[in-house]
Amino acid sequence: MADILIQGVSVLTMEGSEDIIENGDILIKGDRIAALGPYGSVSTEEQAKRVIDGSGKIAMPGFVNCHTHAAMTMLRSYADDMPLMEWLSEKIWPVEDKLEPEDIYWGTMLCCLEMIKSGTTTFADMYFIMDQVALAVEKSGLRACLSRGLIGNGPNAGLALEENINFFKEWNDGAGGRIKVMFGPHAPYTCPPEYLKQVIELAGKYGAGLHIHVAETKSEVEQINASYGRTPVGHLDSVGLFELPVLAAHCVHLDNADIEILARNNVGVAHCPESNMKLASGAAPVAGLLEAGVCVGLGTDGAASNNNLDMLEEMRSAAMLQKVNTGDPTVMPAFTALRTATANGARVLGLAGEIGMLKTGMKADLILINKHRPHFCPQHNLIANLVYAGHSTDVDTVIVDGKILMENRRVLTIDEEEVMREAQIRADRLVG
Amino acid sequence: MADILIQGVSVLTMEGSEDIIENGDILIKGDRIAALGPYGSVSTEEQAKRVIDGSGKIAMPGFVNCHTHAAMTMLRSYADDMPLMEWLSEKIWPVEDKLEPEDIYWGTMLCCLEMIKSGTTTFADMYFIMDQVALAVEKSGLRACLSRGLIGNGPNAGLALEENINFFKEWNDGAGGRIKVMFGPHAPYTCPPEYLKQVIELAGKYGAGLHIHVAETKSEVEQINASYGRTPVGHLDSVGLFELPVLAAHCVHLDNADIEILARNNVGVAHCPESNMKLASGAAPVAGLLEAGVCVGLGTDGAASNNNLDMLEEMRSAAMLQKVNTGDPTVMPAFTALRTATANGARVLGLAGEIGMLKTGMKADLILINKHRPHFCPQHNLIANLVYAGHSTDVDTVIVDGKILMENRRVLTIDEEEVMREAQIRADRLVG
Repeated sequence: MADILIQGVSVLTMEGSEDIIENGDILIKGDRIAALGPYGSVSTEEQAKRVIDGSGKIAMPGFVNCHTHAAMTMLRSYADDMPLMEWLSEKIWPVEDKLEPEDIYWGTMLCCLEMIKSGTTTFADMYFIMDQVALAVEKSGLRACLSRGLIGNGPNAGLALEENINFFKEWNDGAGGRIKVMFGPHAPYTCPPEYLKQVIELAGKYGAGLHIHVAETKSEVEQINASYGRTPVGHLDSVGLFELPVLAAHCVHLDNADIEILARNNVGVAHCPESNMKLASGAAPVAGLLEAGVCVGLGTDGAASNNNLDMLEEMRSAAMLQKVNTGDPTVMPAFTALRTATANGARVLGLAGEIGMLKTGMKADLILINKHRPHFCPQHNLIANLVYAGHSTDVDTVIVDGKILMENRRVLTIDEEEVMREAQIRADRLVG
Repeated sequence: MADILIQGVSVLTMEGSEDIIENGDILIKGDRIAALGPYGSVSTEEQAKRVIDGSGKIAMPGFVNCHTHAAMTMLRSYADDMPLMEWLSEKIWPVEDKLEPEDIYWGTMLCCLEMIKSGTTTFADMYFIMDQVALAVEKSGLRACLSRGLIGNGPNAGLALEENINFFKEWNDGAGGRIKVMFGPHAPYTCPPEYLKQVIELAGKYGAGLHIHVAETKSEVEQINASYGRTPVGHLDSVGLFELPVLAAHCVHLDNADIEILARNNVGVAHCPESNMKLASGAAPVAGLLEAGVCVGLGTDGAASNNNLDMLEEMRSAAMLQKVNTGDPTVMPAFTALRTATANGARVLGLAGEIGMLKTGMKADLILINKHRPHFCPQHNLIANLVYAGHSTDVDTVIVDGKILMENRRVLTIDEEEVMREAQIRADRLVG
């Protein structure tokens, strides 16, 4: 017997075309999609333990947030509108020094709560004290790719690498297979070549991917050029980083040779438009990357520089930033933006066969969106309405791994009041 | 006896400083704010017919949307991701030709519904068949500055001007004083100088302001320069337009002399960042305008090019676009963005003494925002949370002219289901 049948819903499969199954059914068995098709074609009510009425709703793959620092949600609105280095050195780093394991846990729980409420089902994280992040992921029911951030030029370079290894051993494939562990060399300017080579060797040994910040700011490009005579991408290529699967966050400042290197090596890019705008880092050449065949996913970055974790808003900002930056309104149309937030994100995280589309046999990671809303009216084009007018609060139901995490906007896996209370207490202590 | 007492609310007065009355009371008598101050200071419960518990909420002036084409909400998602002229000539104009009075009414009602639900209390509109727009404004309870769009180089140039005059006579100070009528010369490239002079003379005679599109695209700048050897702003100045109060929408492509002209003449600018991004028009020099002392308000433009009417999102986009465009993250900080969406908007519309701030004696146009939300947590800085993380769906209560238009997200003046149904029927006919 199947577990969940969603009936009479508008299905956006994200399988490659913009086609919508206007009145579709989705059958879920265990953690996977067992069948999917037009209304009445896949099952009858008797065959599922649970039937969800999908009328007036869109079913689509959950959003994949390819770059976050979840626990930093604790620092939302702590420091804004500041120059990057002043923001980091005077505000963010001093507070991060005080973070204790429970702060990481509750900060991540707050992040998970907001992500569930805005329709994200998978996220890629880089931070520290990662076992606490994993515990929050396990509890929340979300799927995640987690990496220990590795600063290779600091006093804890070796210790951090050891922690990443232990974290891999303990948590890779953990939480019922929902957690994948990656290695997290922070950035080319914080990890010397010898350290990067060490990380590459270890990640290769464990069969893990890498998550790294690349070419986020102009000053990074200048610094790497001064040190190594190469662009950040060229430098990382010369070190051999791209021989492993790599998730490269930001990639704002690239030249054509960089784009060619990323394409040739199947490097996945996590584009973070709102963080890049808010920190004034610049506009990534997403149109050029996509044209060159690079897979571009979307990330919110941490809530200290965004300041929310709203992927629906992020894809709208991605499309709008690309249009205004290229001067071409046809660039990054709605469906392309939607793909970056779903199917592309899955590929970028190495999960293309499992999530990011609604397809028989794939994981049941999906969301229902209420389209019976004034801002979805009239419905000339459902995808344009979703991308350019939708609100994350239209997300009604969230399912991950076949489990319902939110229903009618009530989160089932997390006590919302407890999380907000615990986060505020800890935030007050940290900045007090 | 007072009408409404809002108790124990966090008050953002927008009177110029970022100061917040953490636990404040607001007393409303008729259409005006009768008193405002710390909890317990202004009244007791017995003195008001109605008491609203403001705990967990922010009270602030309602958003002022300085540039819309309300009835175009009917064309939301009808045509996206297209070059501007193709979008207008192949999609928008042919459908606009078919618009009947009832389409204008229901399109505007849909717009008013969405604006109320997202916390807008006043908007400035330019369109045609304006008596239907006025009827929708009257019914919705919103405040509006309405102008008949005047195309001076088309076959109906004279007729349109006559309509604007009649509309002024019939509706200025209408809907209990909530409607102000302006004259709406469409743009410098659609209104020849002689026509503009006619409009200026008539508007001056009636004591009305002007609402006009200015310097929206590069091609407009080129066209005006080819015709008159001046920038659009320089040209309008030479025609004498700025001798009247002017609301100039867009102002994307300006030089320093233009900015100086706008400042010297107290021209109000309606900045429309999301429309400018989506149509790839460019990024207006808002930081430069503000520095020069120009009053900049915010507008969404029509929902055909935005595609929503969400002022909270608009102010976030304004701040982010300005930062990334100038390369300076300190530019347009949260409070400045919030001011463009409220107090500045009021000034731009010539309503500075009446709305845009919470202050004793001013109109009771205010909104309550629920801050007991995961994305408002933790609360290090309320204004940063509101501007950078808030959702328009956090708006809980909307009051205009002392009347409650929405309470606990239920709109009291408009039948939501009826509006969505009527809009969809008409949208289907228009594009069918």
